[in-house]
Amino acid sequence: MKEVGVIGVGKTPFGAFAGRDLRSLAVEAVQNALAGAGTEPAEVQAFFLGNFAGPSFTGQSHLAPYVAGAAGLTGIPATRYEAACASSGAAFHAAWQAVASGIYDTVVVCGVEKMTSQPTARVAQILAMAGDVSAEALPGATFPAIFAMIARRHMYQYGTTREHLASVAVKNHENAMTNPWAHMKKAITMEQALAGKPIAEPLTIYDCSLVSDGAAAVVLKAGTGSVRVLGCAQTSDYVALEAKSDITALPAVQLSARKAYAEAGLTPREIDFAEVHDCFTIAEILAVEELGFCAKGEGGPFSQARAKTVNRSGGLKAKGHPVGATGVAQIADVTLQLRGQAEGWQLPNVTIGLAQNLGGSGATSVVTILGKA
Amino acid sequence: MKEVGVIGVGKTPFGAFAGRDLRSLAVEAVQNALAGAGTEPAEVQAFFLGNFAGPSFTGQSHLAPYVAGAAGLTGIPATRYEAACASSGAAFHAAWQAVASGIYDTVVVCGVEKMTSQPTARVAQILAMAGDVSAEALPGATFPAIFAMIARRHMYQYGTTREHLASVAVKNHENAMTNPWAHMKKAITMEQALAGKPIAEPLTIYDCSLVSDGAAAVVLKAGTGSVRVLGCAQTSDYVALEAKSDITALPAVQLSARKAYAEAGLTPREIDFAEVHDCFTIAEILAVEELGFCAKGEGGPFSQARAKTVNRSGGLKAKGHPVGATGVAQIADVTLQLRGQAEGWQLPNVTIGLAQNLGGSGATSVVTILGKA
Repeated sequence: MKEVGVIGVGKTPFGAFAGRDLRSLAVEAVQNALAGAGTEPAEVQAFFLGNFAGPSFTGQSHLAPYVAGAAGLTGIPATRYEAACASSGAAFHAAWQAVASGIYDTVVVCGVEKMTSQPTARVAQILAMAGDVSAEALPGATFPAIFAMIARRHMYQYGTTREHLASVAVKNHENAMTNPWAHMKKAITMEQALAGKPIAEPLTIYDCSLVSDGAAAVVLKAGTGSVRVLGCAQTSDYVALEAKSDITALPAVQLSARKAYAEAGLTPREIDFAEVHDCFTIAEILAVEELGFCAKGEGGPFSQARAKTVNRSGGLKAKGHPVGATGVAQIADVTLQLRGQAEGWQLPNVTIGLAQNLGGSGATSVVTILGKA
Repeated sequence: MKEVGVIGVGKTPFGAFAGRDLRSLAVEAVQNALAGAGTEPAEVQAFFLGNFAGPSFTGQSHLAPYVAGAAGLTGIPATRYEAACASSGAAFHAAWQAVASGIYDTVVVCGVEKMTSQPTARVAQILAMAGDVSAEALPGATFPAIFAMIARRHMYQYGTTREHLASVAVKNHENAMTNPWAHMKKAITMEQALAGKPIAEPLTIYDCSLVSDGAAAVVLKAGTGSVRVLGCAQTSDYVALEAKSDITALPAVQLSARKAYAEAGLTPREIDFAEVHDCFTIAEILAVEELGFCAKGEGGPFSQARAKTVNRSGGLKAKGHPVGATGVAQIADVTLQLRGQAEGWQLPNVTIGLAQNLGGSGATSVVTILGKA
């Protein structure tokens, strides 16, 4: 396997942009990434697009060549990768494999989603398609309900509290205050978080991530770059929660983390910081457990006491969650931190970072570890 | 690059199956492919799913782990590939690359689409999302209209006739008569084809492929198998027809064919037979030109006189076109021919076959050449 460097990073801000369409967001991210890398479009050998539900949100399919053509990339393989909320994590994984194995020298991976400008009920319906629709959405279990069940069980099984959940929200809102690219800049207190509008008990509005528009892109190149991919692994599990023996566990996350650590030759203790998939506050608690940052069941206390370097960007909770963009955006943010270019929200002395991207309630997981070369 | 063998083939019949859902079709194809290969689910290291519009047709997204879990494949990368009508061609291309480059030893590629059981207008709307919706579908140019414009221009530029177009339909309907897996078994005469119900002038109902349900799967393994992948290439072009300088050309097909021929060390003359993407009769005429089976502009006369070994399965025209299944189904059919297992529709003395899968009006192309080991 060849070493793979992240040589360019491009992002749009995350937010609700009434005047922007999916393609313009993606093209902006791709062009920024190419410019940052000093890479000409003609040097790009393949285009990997992560997008969850562009056809449903925007009415346009065939999105990879649709975006690639507008970004000046034609005559190369251009494919859309869909793995629910881990769509661009999956696209990144495939792109990394292709460069690491010598198939390509230089590729672009982009993640994008345009979610706003439509009724909330339609957004919820589209998001619910990432779960098992027959077993979950049709009987009424949209994602807030699914993660509420997981949270309730975690509280029962491990003594996790509403305060533990809320602490994730308070921290991530605080973190986003200094990230100029974040969707929501609104510091909240523990009292506010606990008193939020109920969504699905025990989750309030402050336990839920945002509906956002946005895009992110990276340029990968073999054997060069100041930031390298030390390990990357993707795994899968059942889509329906009912198929799992323990709904508080994310075996796909645990397995992909184990593989990524093994590839990188690292242990969880050696990770300086992480961007994790906090689609709901309980998801961050599960993530830090499955990634080995703390023991199983200890995610609540860990998050309340020691999770300062988790989701320094603000996470999906406050940076925003344009679903298909999230996986690549996490990797872009980890790269910026490692380069010392996270202006206003830079973590001191970081050399190794991790990104964890989750699909649905755990059926897809991609874990990526990046380090300074 | 390692040699890659197609060691298992699984298909469902193509047709309109009111009682079948997407997952059951895909699982049947995957399980048949695994059984044929003698491969246990635990040996499969990655699952590649080609699907165009499952979320729009069936309301279910996150389809790769959704299918994989039901087929007994968990804990492995499982991703959906979307590239319009070339979705499973793109999935196959990625899978082949991954095995050829040594990332995996054994993988499964499946293509599936469940299109029937809904109003024709909704089907047309979903299919139109494979084109540039703003530039084409919204002003009224759905795919029959787009290919009608291409046909009309080809007639003007090269003297192609309605009889040339109709000859493709007559041949492919005839071919499907002996393929037990084909959707439509109905021989038609030239007179019938020419007198078909007008769809978009000059195309009649007999110039259009079918709306079908179905799935196909293959098992790929490194360095073994009686049928090998000799070459495989994917390329892209603009989605909107208006962006092309010559709408009768398919530069992505020409480029992907050139690359696949170069990889295989073969010329068009050495191809014994081909499954090509006849979503409309004019598309087969363009395909045989761009694949180099005849000169540019000669596709009409070629199809009328000498195309006996093109689309022996019946093609998309009569075998059926469950969009996301088509790319892998073509490869499955080529493999069956090379193995001498195309019962009832076996071509004599074939050792090298080609499959050509097209996305939209030419924005994605995948060309695969297979041969006896």
